[in-house]
Order: sequence, then structure tokens, then C-alpha cells
Amino acid sequence: MDDLPPLDLSADVLSLTRALVDAPSVSGGETALADAVEAALRDLGGLEVERIGDAVLARTNLGRPTRVVLAGHLDTVPIADNVPSRLDEATGRLYGCGTSDMKSGDAVMLRLAGRFGVPGAEPAHDVTFVFYDNEEVEAVKNGLGRVARERRGWLYGDLAILMEPTDGEIEAGCQGTLRAVLETRGRRAHSARSWLGVNAIHALTGAFTALAAYRPREVEIDGCLYREGLNAVGVSGGVAGNVIPDEASLTINFRYAPDRDEDAAEAHVREVFADAVAAGATLTVVDNSGGALPGLSEPAAAAFIEAVGRPARAKLGWTDVARFSAFGIPALNYGPGDPQLAHTREEHVLVDRLQPAEDALTAYLSGSTA
Amino acid sequence: MDDLPPLDLSADVLSLTRALVDAPSVSGGETALADAVEAALRDLGGLEVERIGDAVLARTNLGRPTRVVLAGHLDTVPIADNVPSRLDEATGRLYGCGTSDMKSGDAVMLRLAGRFGVPGAEPAHDVTFVFYDNEEVEAVKNGLGRVARERRGWLYGDLAILMEPTDGEIEAGCQGTLRAVLETRGRRAHSARSWLGVNAIHALTGAFTALAAYRPREVEIDGCLYREGLNAVGVSGGVAGNVIPDEASLTINFRYAPDRDEDAAEAHVREVFADAVAAGATLTVVDNSGGALPGLSEPAAAAFIEAVGRPARAKLGWTDVARFSAFGIPALNYGPGDPQLAHTREEHVLVDRLQPAEDALTAYLSGSTA
Repeated sequence: MDDLPPLDLSADVLSLTRALVDAPSVSGGETALADAVEAALRDLGGLEVERIGDAVLARTNLGRPTRVVLAGHLDTVPIADNVPSRLDEATGRLYGCGTSDMKSGDAVMLRLAGRFGVPGAEPAHDVTFVFYDNEEVEAVKNGLGRVARERRGWLYGDLAILMEPTDGEIEAGCQGTLRAVLETRGRRAHSARSWLGVNAIHALTGAFTALAAYRPREVEIDGCLYREGLNAVGVSGGVAGNVIPDEASLTINFRYAPDRDEDAAEAHVREVFADAVAAGATLTVVDNSGGALPGLSEPAAAAFIEAVGRPARAKLGWTDVARFSAFGIPALNYGPGDPQLAHTREEHVLVDRLQPAEDALTAYLSGSTA
Repeated sequence: MDDLPPLDLSADVLSLTRALVDAPSVSGGETALADAVEAALRDLGGLEVERIGDAVLARTNLGRPTRVVLAGHLDTVPIADNVPSRLDEATGRLYGCGTSDMKSGDAVMLRLAGRFGVPGAEPAHDVTFVFYDNEEVEAVKNGLGRVARERRGWLYGDLAILMEPTDGEIEAGCQGTLRAVLETRGRRAHSARSWLGVNAIHALTGAFTALAAYRPREVEIDGCLYREGLNAVGVSGGVAGNVIPDEASLTINFRYAPDRDEDAAEAHVREVFADAVAAGATLTVVDNSGGALPGLSEPAAAAFIEAVGRPARAKLGWTDVARFSAFGIPALNYGPGDPQLAHTREEHVLVDRLQPAEDALTAYLSGSTA
């Protein structure tokens, strides 16, 4: 892969966002962009820099009493005829793959590195920058997970801010997500003699009624309202139009507030479907990622909220903040992108979201308020 | 395709069955076998013979007061390493594709043609032989259906006997079969914010409970017990593990007794799912083939039952007898094959079922009783 032109961290945040978007970096193909980011950070002269695969880690070591970790992934979902970027001046939108999710966040991080990662800079907190790969694909490939396994010390801090798109709001913690498959078995028979068989699709009825009767919980933690949800996200069964089916399955997704841990979430799902299981169904948890508590009572988090000048709200989706939470580090989501547009062909970012994000973080890291 | 060796209708019914099985005739590839059957029937000298595509029609025209139609399809399902035929002397089984479904029946028909289709023969009834193609594939290709459309007169008679496998029993009429698809619509949303969406899988719940509460009817007609059944034979829905699905569907098969016609069957299914439809689901009937009344009170049928010497029972599956029933012709299923083995790799026929079937029909057509 050809080298990219050097990144100019002194350019404004919009220009920097465009430069990042115009450097394609679909998951698994981040190397050129990671090279450019690494080179730009090393050039600053005030940062300890380490490269781990296509993750680029950089930090100040100024002996400040607190450390703030800023994290963002470099990869994008596959391009959908939306690279290079396109600026629509009339609507103030920058279109392109990764504009929202999350190269605008990466651009803010690079601007902050350019300000606080140079010799003589005086941030109020030490700062760690984590740019990582493979966020948009299977969890096992996730670059932040790899850093957590191989260089855990790089992730420690008093507050982590993940710059995933939040539309400029502070979204605290995240909900957990559990997926389970409920499978029923029956006995195959010709449908003209259905009483000789046992219909595995019909055997799902109890699970359907359990879902229909389910009332999801809402819970407030640190002033943030988390809303749970238990949903079927897939159902399948059937052999042929004239056969009583002997297998059927229902895939369930439970989104749960961070006051439940993974075990408690699984126990809850098993309780909901206890009757179906007692009737012979099997329930298998296929993945389960715990959420992250908002941690807003931590002083470092409170100061950041003050700097942004807006109240925090609950993060409902699961994000990589949970990887920080697993180490007991309070973690927030805060980014200029629009989460509704992530992964769409029409992905764009509102240009006027960019500078306020940079300014709020600059104020926070400087120790002043916005 | 090469010509087959001539069929010897004077050979015993087992040899004739083997000759037919050893002449592959998967649906759509019946021409060589139809050619051989046509040639053998023409050679007899006492039959009017007509060829329509790969259907071969032959009949006596002796001015008898009654006419009996014997029908059998020449095609088979795809071969599964089970041609040529294999005779297992120890168990008295002839193995091979089509042995049960239904070349053993065809062989009985050819034996009867050899006896009653020659000059000077004196059957008690005029006899029509219908050998047809494409029974094992889509109904639109069915050779008997084509004959019904193009040469309806060939199918008229006082009794039709379809020689599909019945294990040597008389199975009267047939049940109807209706397939319908119940579709629900919702609104897609990320499963972390499930309340923004409408879950189309959950919307199937009413249909599931309707199926669970359904009690199928049993009805006796002409002494035959028909057992209905209403079953889900397929279910599908789901977009991705983190998406509230906006579409789901349930495929339903209703097997109904022949005292309901097609319209009554559809009305019944619509009544069962009325609540689901009222709640927004759509119900589409995708196919509906009415059944056939047993017609056992007709004199020609009663005489045949007497010849076989066993009581008739209800035919539960749908068969081509319904095509005769549509013209008001009483129709029975009677064949030496085993319906349980049809379409299996292990398909076989019990050798000692063959001669009794030939003998019973010979007695009936001769006007004597067995």
C-alpha cells in the first residue's frame, strides 16, 4: 500500500477530518492510516508513542495527578460510493464514509495531540491517545481489546473518553448486550398426518408469549436513564411445505442496564424463558458483553461534564467504553458524529459540531471550563 | 436418448416392475419410457392409443355399460444411487427408485392391459389406462392435469383408480391442502433502542397462540375417517443480531377433509387467524387444492371394494384423485407400493404385494370377486 501524505495537525479540525476520510481504512486495511497517524504523533516531540499492530498509542508523561484517556478507532465499515469526502456548504454537512463514525472524533483527538503533545505544553491532566483498528468487525479482532490484553497499562487513567458519535452529547457508560438462541425440537412427519409428528415451530409458542408479556425495566443510575429491551431478532424453522418441522429456533437479544452484570443478565433471561425450557426447549447464550456504569460521580468525569456544559445522558448501545469499565475506569462517550448516520450510505457530520467538540476538550484538558 | 428394449407385458408383474425401474424416468425425462409403454400398448391390438406429450392414453371401446379408469405416473423423484433395482430375496423386497412410487403400480396396469387390451378379451367394464408424466414436480407440469385440460374425454369413467402406493389398501378420496403465508410488518430499529421500532417477529405471537389453541376436526364420510391438521411448516424473520426486525412470516399448511371445498377451507383459515389479521398481519393463500370425496356409495366403487375384499380407509394426503373428483368421478387410491418409503433412498416394494394387486384388479375387471 502506498504511503499517505503526511497529516498536518495544525490544519483546522474540518480539514483534518477530510484528510482522514479521504484515506480509506476499512477494517483490516488501516495500516497506511495508522502509519500516517504514528508519524504525525512522533513528529510532535512531546509524546511517548508505541505501535501495536495497527493500533497507535501515545501519551504525555508530565506527572500530573490525573490522566485522561481519549480513544477512537481508525477503521470504517465498507465504503459505499462515499469516499472521498464531499462538503455540502449549503447544509453545512461533510459527507463520506467515516465522517461520523468516527474520523471526526479522530480528528479532534489529533488536534488535541497537536496542542498538548508538544514540548512545553501544560495540560491539567496527563493525556493518553489510543487510535485503534478493527472496531467494526468481530469483537475478537478489536484493536482496543488487543491493547487491553497486551499493553493494559496504556489504558489506565482516571477517565476514559471514547469519541464514538454522540451528536456532541455526553453519553455515560453503556448498556450490556446478550444474545441467546432458544431451540425447540420435534419429530418430523408428513403434514397430511401431522399427529404422527411433533411441531417444533408450534413449540416456540411459550417463548413468544413470554416475550409478549415481558415489560422491560427502566433504571436511573447517576441521573442517567437506562432503558432495557428484550427482543426476538431472528426466528427460523421449517423443512418443506408438507413436512411437520422437527427444529426451530428463536434468537433473542437482551439489552440490559449496567447495574446488572453478565451473570445477572443471563440469569434474568433464563428466568423469562424458564417455562419454555421446562417444556423442552434449550436456551444457549451465544454472546454476552456486560455494560459499563456511568461513573459520573468520579471527580474527573464531573469536571468534564462541567467543561462541556451539558448534562450527561445514558448510552444505550454497547460500546468499547465497557473495555475501560472492566478495569474500573469511568468511561464516557463523546463525539461530534451523528450515531443515527453511522454505517449508512448518506453518512455525514455537521460541520458546526466539530469545533465545539475540540474546544470543550481543550478547555477540559487545560483545566479551565468552557 | 436411446430407445429402451421393448416391454414384455407377458412377463410376471415382478419382472415388469424391474424393467420399469431399470428404465430411469426422473420427472422431465420420461420420453424413452413413455415411448416403450406406447409401443407395447399399440402392439396389443385391442386398444385405442393416444400420445399427448409424455402421457400415454389407451382404452378399450367395447360398449360396456361402465368404464374404469386406471391411472399411474411414469416419473420418479431424482435417483439416489438406487437404480438399477435390487431384489433382496431374504426379505422379499425389491429396492430401487420408483419401486413403490409407483412403477409397481404401473406394472400392474400394464399386466391388466396385456390381459384386457387384446382382441377378443371380455372385461366386464371398459377400461382406460392413463400413464402420465411430471407428477413429482410443480403442479403446473402435471401430465394428468394437461390431459384434463386438453383431452378431458379420456378421463371420464364410472370409477377412477389411481395406483399410487397405499400398501395394498383401498384409500378413498383425499384431503385437500392449503398453504398460506401470514406476514407481519414492523419498523426497523437498532435493538439498543428497541422502543423506536416495532418488532415484526413479536407480532407473530397472536398467530402462534391461535395455532396452539387450534383443535383439528375429525370427520367420517362414507365410513372413512378424515383427520384435519393445521400446522406451521415454516417461520422466518430477522435482519441482524442487533436490529429489531421489520418483517416476519409464518407459513401455514391446512390439510382439510373433502367435505370442505377450497373456498370453505380458505374461509376457515381466515377465521382462525382473524385476530392476527385484525392486528395488522396479512394472510395470503399461496396454493389451495381441494380434496376428493370418497364416493364409496357409487356402485362401481362398491364392486371394487368387494373385489379387493378389504374395507376402504380415508386417504389423508392429497393425490391426483382430486383431478378426477373435479369431474364428478369417484376415485380411489390403490397400489402395491408403501407410501412411507416414497422418495427415500431405501425405497422398496414388498414382492408379495404385487400379485394380489394384479389379481384383485383382474377379478374386478372380469366381473368376478376375488
